[in-house]
Amino acid sequence: MKTFVRLFIAFLAVGLLAMTAAKPTRIIFFGDSITQAGVKPGGYIDRLKTMLPADQYELIGAGIGGNKIYDLFLRMDDDVMAQKPDMVVIWVGVNDVWHKATSGTGTDPDKFVKFYEAVVKKLQAANIKVALCTPAAIGEKTDMTNQQDGDLNQYSQFIRDISKKYNVPLIDLRKAFQDYNLKSNAENKDRGILTTDRVHLNDAGNQYVAEQMKNVLTAGK
Amino acid sequence: MKTFVRLFIAFLAVGLLAMTAAKPTRIIFFGDSITQAGVKPGGYIDRLKTMLPADQYELIGAGIGGNKIYDLFLRMDDDVMAQKPDMVVIWVGVNDVWHKATSGTGTDPDKFVKFYEAVVKKLQAANIKVALCTPAAIGEKTDMTNQQDGDLNQYSQFIRDISKKYNVPLIDLRKAFQDYNLKSNAENKDRGILTTDRVHLNDAGNQYVAEQMKNVLTAGK
Amino acid sequence: MKTFVRLFIAFLAVGLLAMTAAKPTRIIFFGDSITQAGVKPGGYIDRLKTMLPADQYELIGAGIGGNKIYDLFLRMDDDVMAQKPDMVVIWVGVNDVWHKATSGTGTDPDKFVKFYEAVVKKLQAANIKVALCTPAAIGEKTDMTNQQDGDLNQYSQFIRDISKKYNVPLIDLRKAFQDYNLKSNAENKDRGILTTDRVHLNDAGNQYVAEQMKNVLTAGK
Amino acid sequence: MKTFVRLFIAFLAVGLLAMTAAKPTRIIFFGDSITQAGVKPGGYIDRLKTMLPADQYELIGAGIGGNKIYDLFLRMDDDVMAQKPDMVVIWVGVNDVWHKATSGTGTDPDKFVKFYEAVVKKLQAANIKVALCTPAAIGEKTDMTNQQDGDLNQYSQFIRDISKKYNVPLIDLRKAFQDYNLKSNAENKDRGILTTDRVHLNDAGNQYVAEQMKNVLTAGK
Repeated sequence: MKTFVRLFIAFLAVGLLAMTAAKPTRIIFFGDSITQAGVKPGGYIDRLKTMLPADQYELIGAGIGGNKIYDLFLRMDDDVMAQKPDMVVIWVGVNDVWHKATSGTGTDPDKFVKFYEAVVKKLQAANIKVALCTPAAIGEKTDMTNQQDGDLNQYSQFIRDISKKYNVPLIDLRKAFQDYNLKSNAENKDRGILTTDRVHLNDAGNQYVAEQMKNVLTAGK
Repeated sequence: MKTFVRLFIAFLAVGLLAMTAAKPTRIIFFGDSITQAGVKPGGYIDRLKTMLPADQYELIGAGIGGNKIYDLFLRMDDDVMAQKPDMVVIWVGVNDVWHKATSGTGTDPDKFVKFYEAVVKKLQAANIKVALCTPAAIGEKTDMTNQQDGDLNQYSQFIRDISKKYNVPLIDLRKAFQDYNLKSNAENKDRGILTTDRVHLNDAGNQYVAEQMKNVLTAGK
Repeated sequence: MKTFVRLFIAFLAVGLLAMTAAKPTRIIFFGDSITQAGVKPGGYIDRLKTMLPADQYELIGAGIGGNKIYDLFLRMDDDVMAQKPDMVVIWVGVNDVWHKATSGTGTDPDKFVKFYEAVVKKLQAANIKVALCTPAAIGEKTDMTNQQDGDLNQYSQFIRDISKKYNVPLIDLRKAFQDYNLKSNAENKDRGILTTDRVHLNDAGNQYVAEQMKNVLTAGK
Repeated sequence: MKTFVRLFIAFLAVGLLAMTAAKPTRIIFFGDSITQAGVKPGGYIDRLKTMLPADQYELIGAGIGGNKIYDLFLRMDDDVMAQKPDMVVIWVGVNDVWHKATSGTGTDPDKFVKFYEAVVKKLQAANIKVALCTPAAIGEKTDMTNQQDGDLNQYSQFIRDISKKYNVPLIDLRKAFQDYNLKSNAENKDRGILTTDRVHLNDAGNQYVAEQMKNVLTAGK
C-alpha cells in the first residue's frame, strides 16, 4: 500500500514537472505601429513564431500605432502586467522623435529617459525579464542626411545607456539597420531596403528584425 | 492626588485638542514657472499668505519652470505626497501647449487628459483635496489672435471637464484673464495687463490670481 | 464717298467695341489644395462658372496642394503673369499656419506679410486687379477651441490689413465661415458643416464660397 | 609730337591700371546672426581684415540674426545689390533647420533650394562673384547625436549640389567643423570647441572660419 502511494506520488511529481517544463515562456512585444504590424502574416513576430519551438514560446504582440514611451507607461498595467509575461521586449522611440516634427508632441529627452526607466523598473520589480530595442530608422539613407538621424541616434544612445544601467539585454536595431544599409543600399535610397516607407518594415526588414531578436529571446532559457 | 491626575489629563486633552485645531491646513501649489515665481515677494502665493490667517493656512509652492502635466505626474510622489498636504492646487497647461511650437515637445490632447486624471485620482485616493486651474494666457490680446488661443481654449476645456468628472473645484483663470482683459486692455496689447511677457504674472496679475484662488482655498474650511 | 467712309469707320468702331465687349474677363484663382479642388465638378470655381455669364468670364484655377504664400510668390511668373489675367483671387494661409504643427515649416508672421505684399504689388504693377481671401478654417468648432484658431485669426487679420493698405477687395471667408457655423453648427462639430475634414470644402462649403466670391468678381464690371 | 602723345597715352593707361588695381575688391558677407557677430572685434570678418591687404579688400558684413534663406532673398536688393559688391559670401542654413524645432517655421527642403538658387542666379546675373558656405553646426558632438545633425547634413548637401550646379566655390564649413571636432573634441562635448553655445563662434571658431574662407576670397584675384 505504502509502495503504491509512493509510486503514485512519484508519478504525480514527474507529471507536474513535465507540465511545468511544458509551460511556454510568454513574451510580450511592447511597442508602436511597427510591432502592431509585427503580428500580421510575415510580420517579425509571426516569423519568430516559426523560428522558435511553439511549445516553448508564446509570443504576444502589444503594439499600438503612434505610441511613444509614455503611452507604453500609461497602458502597461492593462496590456502587459495583467498578462503576466515572463519577458517583455520594448521597442519604442520612433514616435518620440518623429512627433516633434509631425505634430509638435515629441518627447523631451530627459522625460524619455524617465518614463523609459519607470517602465523597466516596474517590469523588473515584478520579476519580468526585459529586453530593449533601439529605434531602427526614420529613413534609410546611409550618409546621415535623414532629417531625424541626429535625434534618433541620441535617443538610441539613451536606450543603450539604460540597458547598461539596468543590466538588461539590448537589441540594437538602430546599429543593425545602419550596418545592413551600408552594405545593401549603395544608391543611398531613403526606403525600400528594410522599410516600405522609411519607417515600417518590408519583408526583408521583418526577417532581419526577427533574426536580430531571436538570440536574445532564447538566451538563458 | 487622583483628582490632580484627572485634572492634569483633562488639561492635556484640551491642550492636544487645541493643538489639533491649531494645525494649519497645508496647501501645495503644484505647477510650472508661474507657480515657481509665485512664492517670491509679491508673487501670488506670497500675497495669499497675507490674505489668509497664518495660523490656519500653510501655503507651499511646488512649481518648476517648464513643467507639463507629465512632469507633475513624475514628481508628485517626491514633491507632493511626501509632504502630506491637505489640499493641492494644480495649475498647469501653458507648457503642454506652448512646447508644441517652441521645442516640438508639447503634450498630445488625449495624453494631457490621461496624465491629468492620473494626478487627480492619486491625490483623491490619498484623501487630499484638489483644486484645478485653467492655464491663463499665452498672450493677452482680446481678439483671439494670440497664436495659441485655440489650443489653450481646448486644453482649458479639458480641465473644466475633469473638474466636473471628479467633482473638484475649478479656478477658471483662463476665463478670468479674458474677462479682465476685455475690460482693461482696450488697445489689444499682448502683454503688460496681467503679465510681463504674455505668460508670467506682473503685480496686477499676481494680485488677481490670489483673489481668484482665495475663495476656493477657504471654502468648506 | 465721304459718307461711305464715315459709315465704314462707324461700323468698324462698333465692331471693335463689340469684340472688346465680347472678350471675357480672365480671372485666376491662385491658392492651395482648396483651390486645386475648386475646379473639379461641384468645386467652387466650377460653381462660379455656372453662376456667371460664360461669355463674360473666363475662370482659371491655379491651386496647388500644400502651397504657402511663398510658394505663390515663387511660381507667380509661370502660373499667373504668363497667362495675362485681368484679375487674380488670392486664397492662401491655411498651410502657412498649419505647417507649423505638421512639419515645422510654417511661415513666420512677418515673412507672411512681406511675401503677401510682394505678390500684391507685383500684380498691381502689371495692372492686374486683385482680390484677397482670408483662410477659412482648420476645424469648424464654434467655441474657438480648434488648435489653430488663434493663429488663423492672426493671419486673417494680416490679410485684412493688407487689403486696406493696398485698397483691394477682401473676401473674408474666415469671418463668413465662423458666422455660418454659429448658425448651423449647434453641436460644435469640427467638420461636416462646410468642410469634409476640417479644411477642405464639402458641397455646402463650395457653394458658400462661390456665393461669397461672386459679388466681388462682378463688382465694377 | 606723336611720341609725346604716345607717351601721354601710355602714362594715362598705366595710371588707370594703377587706379583700377587700387580699387579694393568689395566682398559682402551675407548671412545670419553668426555673420552679424562676425564684424565685431575678434569676429571672423574682423579677423579676415587683418589677414588680407586692406588696400585690396573691402569686407562688409550683412548678417541679421534669425535670417533664413528667404530672408536673404527678401532683403538682397537693399542690403547687397545696392552696394555693388564684387563678391558675395553666402552663409545661411542654421535657422532654416533650427526654426523647425524652435518656432515651427523652418524652411521646406525644396523651398530652401529654390530660394537659394534664386539668390545665386540674381547675383550671377549682375556679374557678382559668389561663394557658398555650408551651415557649420547646431551642436558639436562628434557621434552624430546632435538633434539636428541629419537635417543639417541634408541642407549642407543641397548647398554642395548648388555649388556644383552653378559652378561657384564652396566653403564647406559643415565638413570643416566636423573634421576639427573629430580631432579636438575627444569628450564629445556639444559646445566649447569652436562655438560658445552650439551655434555661435568662440575665438577659435572665428579664427578657424576666417582661415577656411581666406583662400576662396583671394583665389583668382
